[in-house]
Amino acid sequence: MLTLDKIYHASFVLKDVIRHTDLVHSEKLNPEADVWLKPENLQLTGSFKLRGSGYMISQLSDEEKSHGVIACSAGNHAQGVALAATKYGIKSLICLPDGAPISKVEATKNYGAEVCMVPGVYDDAYNKAIELRDKEGYTFVHPFDNIDVIAGQGTIGLEILNEIDDVDAIIVPIGGGGLISGVAFAAKKLKPDIKVYGVQAAGAPSMFNSIKSGKIEKLDKVSTIADGIAVKQPGENTFKLVSEYVDDIVTVTEDEISSAILALIEQHKMVAEGAGAVSVAAVMHNKVPVKGKKVVCVVSGGNIDVTILSRVIKRGLMKSGRLCNLVIELMDKPGQLQNVSRIIAECGGNVTGVHHERASETTDINGCFLRVSLETKNQEHMEQIVKALKDYGFKIVEH
Amino acid sequence: MLTLDKIYHASFVLKDVIRHTDLVHSEKLNPEADVWLKPENLQLTGSFKLRGSGYMISQLSDEEKSHGVIACSAGNHAQGVALAATKYGIKSLICLPDGAPISKVEATKNYGAEVCMVPGVYDDAYNKAIELRDKEGYTFVHPFDNIDVIAGQGTIGLEILNEIDDVDAIIVPIGGGGLISGVAFAAKKLKPDIKVYGVQAAGAPSMFNSIKSGKIEKLDKVSTIADGIAVKQPGENTFKLVSEYVDDIVTVTEDEISSAILALIEQHKMVAEGAGAVSVAAVMHNKVPVKGKKVVCVVSGGNIDVTILSRVIKRGLMKSGRLCNLVIELMDKPGQLQNVSRIIAECGGNVTGVHHERASETTDINGCFLRVSLETKNQEHMEQIVKALKDYGFKIVEH
Repeated sequence: MLTLDKIYHASFVLKDVIRHTDLVHSEKLNPEADVWLKPENLQLTGSFKLRGSGYMISQLSDEEKSHGVIACSAGNHAQGVALAATKYGIKSLICLPDGAPISKVEATKNYGAEVCMVPGVYDDAYNKAIELRDKEGYTFVHPFDNIDVIAGQGTIGLEILNEIDDVDAIIVPIGGGGLISGVAFAAKKLKPDIKVYGVQAAGAPSMFNSIKSGKIEKLDKVSTIADGIAVKQPGENTFKLVSEYVDDIVTVTEDEISSAILALIEQHKMVAEGAGAVSVAAVMHNKVPVKGKKVVCVVSGGNIDVTILSRVIKRGLMKSGRLCNLVIELMDKPGQLQNVSRIIAECGGNVTGVHHERASETTDINGCFLRVSLETKNQEHMEQIVKALKDYGFKIVEH
Repeated sequence: MLTLDKIYHASFVLKDVIRHTDLVHSEKLNPEADVWLKPENLQLTGSFKLRGSGYMISQLSDEEKSHGVIACSAGNHAQGVALAATKYGIKSLICLPDGAPISKVEATKNYGAEVCMVPGVYDDAYNKAIELRDKEGYTFVHPFDNIDVIAGQGTIGLEILNEIDDVDAIIVPIGGGGLISGVAFAAKKLKPDIKVYGVQAAGAPSMFNSIKSGKIEKLDKVSTIADGIAVKQPGENTFKLVSEYVDDIVTVTEDEISSAILALIEQHKMVAEGAGAVSVAAVMHNKVPVKGKKVVCVVSGGNIDVTILSRVIKRGLMKSGRLCNLVIELMDKPGQLQNVSRIIAECGGNVTGVHHERASETTDINGCFLRVSLETKNQEHMEQIVKALKDYGFKIVEH
């Protein structure tokens, strides 16, 4: 059973296993709120997961420890289990689907785990892990639905209240629900009037749906850049704890997540993964009631594939109106390009690319398209440029 | 005159102006050394510059303060001066060349400065600033060649030794030399046997050249992604201090800088700008003698344009052998693509793009090119794939 005592005990045990992550104040993420970040992306292994697996492994008997632990994950959980096992001097085996990215496999090995590549998808790797557990006597480390794991994650709640005790609300990403279960339990037991809000990606709203319908729901598929919280089904323990201790759950879109990742890079020089940035996305886009409140966003992890990061940056720039592509239909006669350039320059936009296409079947025989890539200051600035072009008589086909 | 007392005084004065940045331990940047990072990219305004301008502004007379300060910069110095002036409740005017990136101009305004856009380049903006200083009575805040500014930057040296007093060496980026002058002076006065190494971009080696030749040298042009240290000429004060207190200066290439930025993102979830990452680049690529030593790299700033960041990520991936483009010449007959794919797959490479071109004038009439983009584990892995393809008989035109 989860108790505050257990979370305090986890905090004591983890003292020398984890890195203490200080809260960071944010001036600009939401100017109407007093926003703080709990940067677990700066945690060892790049995510909070080390806490849960670290505490669970610490509580195993010597007999259990001698057989080692097994887990199934292609992500943060794998790295958390690997480092926790290494710190406690025991063996760990991680089953991964064979399509897992090379970078994740290498990282898991680097933290000291053995890796077992299983042909197929996540479920195949999971089945293999269970099979090996039964055959070889490993202890299975569940990514979220285990009370010791939840207690380990709950230490984040203690740390937040320890550092600023007058916090009004904590905003926490939800995948399987282990993190928010621990944090909400700890926070509410210590400060019953605190609010705890959960955030899911709109493309993977398993806990959101389950709480709305009052029973555990399973999604057929999940699709989001926040792969760390792309979980099809909440756990039984986590569903119960979230039902009881979490005030509300909201969802954020892919564009909102991208703009949050970008804001953390630009304003805080911190790299967050999609799953880690959903809490910030919710606060930036006023998905949760934070106006006039002191709030802490748990930034749960930073393990984002750098090639994805490049794409996210671009998407975030477009979402925030800092980069835009206009397609302008113009008559194919001299001086048109010059007029477009002049109007954009007068409005203070910075052209980074131009592509001029002659007529296609869909346009007037004399028409042509001008595709212009622009750096702009923000959404209003972009709209202002579009308006100036329209006012001059250009037809904007797309923006 | 620079004294240790002045640096201690700066440290006292800046207490409530700056954010204290804790050292971060790095396990992997150079496995043969005990590497720590001083993350001034996490400093307010995203760079150490606030320290120098903050201290200098604090030391102005009330009369001087009433006229405000002026500076010329399109970068970190502008933001440092702007925020420092705002914190001390005085007016600041920043002259910028009119080609300065929108993001920098906006950031400077957001910290409370007025901005004066000057047609032309940096030198024009500088001349305008001097003209306005003389006409309006502003105090000019030099970006590096001022003793109070240097004393402010030197507080970083105190903080490092305060946190780990058995450090063997400090590695510091050099642009104009203000940062390293302060840090080296403070560190050597407190711990005479400590080593201090400076790092410049190979594309902007003004202090490097000046120290080698024993007198101040001016570069005709500078070219590097590390724009924060792209300085054509050291200052007189900084040249003297560096001559006396710095043990050696090394340079790093653009690729080395890119791989350092990438390593900080992946291993530490931190965003550094090019100038901020040169110290890490020097340690990663063994440009300075760190084997078996406890060393601190000053990561001086994190204000990198996000569009440049995307490009740097790609370059860093290529430099570290994680992304590569192979151009393979093959005979235009069936089954060739299949053989290439099979060999790459057997070696564990992940194909992300394929482009197949028929013969050009330079090839055999029946020949064609296959351009393959690959994700690989590291340099050795990439070489192994190239070798396997060659062993099979394929001709690798480019990699």
